[in-house]
Amino acid sequence: MTPLPEALLPALREALGAAQVLSDPADCLAYSYDNSKRVALPQAVVFASSHEQVQAVVRHCYELRVPLTVRGRGTNTTGATVPLAGGVVLSLERMNRILEISPGDRLLRCEAGVLNGEVQAAAAAHGLFWAPDPTSAAFSTVGGNIGCGAGGPRAVKYGTTRENVLGLRAVSGAGVSLKTGCMTTKGVVGYDLTRLLIGSEGTLAIVTEATLKLLPRPRAQRMLRACYADIGAAARAVSRIMNQPETPSALEFMDGEAVRLAEAYQRTGVPSGTGALLLIEVDGHEQTIGFAQVAVQQAAQGEGLIELKAAGSAAEAEALWACRKALSPSLRKIAPKKVNEDVVVPVTRIPELVEGLAQLARKHAIRIVNFGHAGNGNLHTNLLVDPEDPAQMQAVQACLREVFRLVLDLDGSLSGEHGVGIDKRDFVGWEIAADTLRVMHDLKRSLDPHGILNPGKTLP
Amino acid sequence: MTPLPEALLPALREALGAAQVLSDPADCLAYSYDNSKRVALPQAVVFASSHEQVQAVVRHCYELRVPLTVRGRGTNTTGATVPLAGGVVLSLERMNRILEISPGDRLLRCEAGVLNGEVQAAAAAHGLFWAPDPTSAAFSTVGGNIGCGAGGPRAVKYGTTRENVLGLRAVSGAGVSLKTGCMTTKGVVGYDLTRLLIGSEGTLAIVTEATLKLLPRPRAQRMLRACYADIGAAARAVSRIMNQPETPSALEFMDGEAVRLAEAYQRTGVPSGTGALLLIEVDGHEQTIGFAQVAVQQAAQGEGLIELKAAGSAAEAEALWACRKALSPSLRKIAPKKVNEDVVVPVTRIPELVEGLAQLARKHAIRIVNFGHAGNGNLHTNLLVDPEDPAQMQAVQACLREVFRLVLDLDGSLSGEHGVGIDKRDFVGWEIAADTLRVMHDLKRSLDPHGILNPGKTLP
Repeated sequence: MTPLPEALLPALREALGAAQVLSDPADCLAYSYDNSKRVALPQAVVFASSHEQVQAVVRHCYELRVPLTVRGRGTNTTGATVPLAGGVVLSLERMNRILEISPGDRLLRCEAGVLNGEVQAAAAAHGLFWAPDPTSAAFSTVGGNIGCGAGGPRAVKYGTTRENVLGLRAVSGAGVSLKTGCMTTKGVVGYDLTRLLIGSEGTLAIVTEATLKLLPRPRAQRMLRACYADIGAAARAVSRIMNQPETPSALEFMDGEAVRLAEAYQRTGVPSGTGALLLIEVDGHEQTIGFAQVAVQQAAQGEGLIELKAAGSAAEAEALWACRKALSPSLRKIAPKKVNEDVVVPVTRIPELVEGLAQLARKHAIRIVNFGHAGNGNLHTNLLVDPEDPAQMQAVQACLREVFRLVLDLDGSLSGEHGVGIDKRDFVGWEIAADTLRVMHDLKRSLDPHGILNPGKTLP
Repeated sequence: MTPLPEALLPALREALGAAQVLSDPADCLAYSYDNSKRVALPQAVVFASSHEQVQAVVRHCYELRVPLTVRGRGTNTTGATVPLAGGVVLSLERMNRILEISPGDRLLRCEAGVLNGEVQAAAAAHGLFWAPDPTSAAFSTVGGNIGCGAGGPRAVKYGTTRENVLGLRAVSGAGVSLKTGCMTTKGVVGYDLTRLLIGSEGTLAIVTEATLKLLPRPRAQRMLRACYADIGAAARAVSRIMNQPETPSALEFMDGEAVRLAEAYQRTGVPSGTGALLLIEVDGHEQTIGFAQVAVQQAAQGEGLIELKAAGSAAEAEALWACRKALSPSLRKIAPKKVNEDVVVPVTRIPELVEGLAQLARKHAIRIVNFGHAGNGNLHTNLLVDPEDPAQMQAVQACLREVFRLVLDLDGSLSGEHGVGIDKRDFVGWEIAADTLRVMHDLKRSLDPHGILNPGKTLP
């Protein structure tokens, strides 16, 4: 790795204060990995406290052509914040102020390092919430959610990050200060840079501040569990549920293998013969929630339904979720590692996907378990493996390639919410045509002319 | 105007067939204007029937550096399809095929020249709809809706075009074929070119095909009319209505002046003393609609409410809309021309906006009437003028500048749904900072290196 240019660290210390610049490898270690378990040591870690400081950092890195990887809390699973090329990691963890909350306008403006959970708490005080709810919500940042285009179970009703951000402040790879979008839920002046930056994993610009669209927090929830004979019956039920106006606030799915593993770990009362299971939540007003539940129940009914259970209380809802919650420990018990791919296909193609995955599991002698966000067709496909077994790890790589091919043959996409990072970078060219990719590279060059921002990520 | 390069028309005739290329000014006349009433004669008009033909047209124009303006049905109000620099108008009116409808996946794929109304009819056959509902829906195209980022009253609940398109096919200004987005409601692979093209008014690429996100069509509607003493009371009611989970499917607004004019034209029973009026629609299931109505009624209640009326039947709903419907003829009666600006501000700033507009009306001796989509803060501000009176037309220009300044001072945006086109191009620099604009120009150059696509629009 090329050493950092001599002028860099003094310039960064000058801009940020000496205490905000770490260059001892021991200090940098904690910023060398993320939830992907990949590791690459940065040559320096710096902490910015303001948009202007971020701009100063980018400008120095731009002038000296030093790789710069922005980081929230590193909860992403794809290696998106691992500084592959070394250089500087810019942590925004100290940019953690909520700048404004306007309940009457249903918006919250905050710095990028604020935790999703902190936004939820501030919004909840006014009866509001921000839609993105990744599993990491308690400890992932708004900037990270924006970088990855985070989703979560609620996206089926309320949309992902893309649909719930009004505007951004950011700094391009050339150190240019950007202000995108607006303070309103409508706006068509200029090009939509907001959405261009969402999901770009810090490769086009560094987001420093966001204006988030808040939504009214439903006061009541109801929970249903529907067990079907097979995946086809469950997928047809998902289509029916999504084609009536009472959109559920969660429409989660487990395939037969997932149900069997979870039940083997801990019996939660799923009837035998269940080949696929849906966990359905509706939310709304206390006065209307019962009717929403009835509407969804009616839609859930149909050929192949084995059992439909509604929770009458919070405790009963907990009991219905128990099968899903037993899944993670059951997977850990039978396999030391799971390779989790969040592929997405049109809802009607879910049965073909699950059947195709079962064939690949047999072919490669790898156990595959599927669950996920059925309403969006977003499956979490888990390949269960022993990382100590080199033959199996090789089989996994071969199998994954066939999984991705299958998903694309079914008009799907390689990632619904986790993103590309390093993990899927080499497969992006399978999904996006070469000409379109070239245009994406052109846009990247236009915003980051020296290619300093998060090199080696997102685009092949 | 420079004559067309000699090689162009033969090349276009070769690519499209001679009958698809018009160059007689008399034939071109119908493609020289749009709903902005501006006029600029193109030097040729061509009709494409496929993505490949569009690509051929762009490539020829690119090589010969000829301006190229794409056109659906020209219903936009901003001059966005007027070929300012002459050159070629490319009409997509013959690309009018619905290619696929998949109710189970809630998506419809169509060519760009299909009418919004045709999409609605095809979707309705499966109990679905596409959210964008501009007034022009019956005769505006999907491609035009995408170019402008069209909205409409339903956007308050279902979002605008931006939130309801999954993917696109398009041709960049360099003749590169693009495929953006995916067939699913989630997807984070590559950069979001879909949203970048939406609202870009044909200045970055020519959209040839779109995959639209459909939604379940609500089976029941209820209509309310709420009359308030003043605009402050109405705006606070809008905030309350938007802060509870039963989001209305329309939340329209008329200011006191609009109500007085409409009532003077035709009495529709609005109580005297009404300073602002809300027309509220809720939709949903037959079984839940009554409760949704109650929830919205409760939220509509509060200080300053004069009267709240709910329609018990379709005929009564019609009667409640009557005041709004009387407005357009009433405006035509008192002024030959209205300058309609669709500015947008955060909901809590609506009272300041309406009060500020009243002051400007007095200052410039111009009658200003406001109505629009209150739930999004999207006001249609109408300056009533006599185009034969040069002094008044000059006053309008001065007044408009102050209107735009006021909107921006209130954290608003110059356009919520109509777009920029020619009309607001010179004011875009007031809203978007110079640095950010430069980046937008860079992106434009990257996608349209010779600047042939719709020159003189969108960006200053």
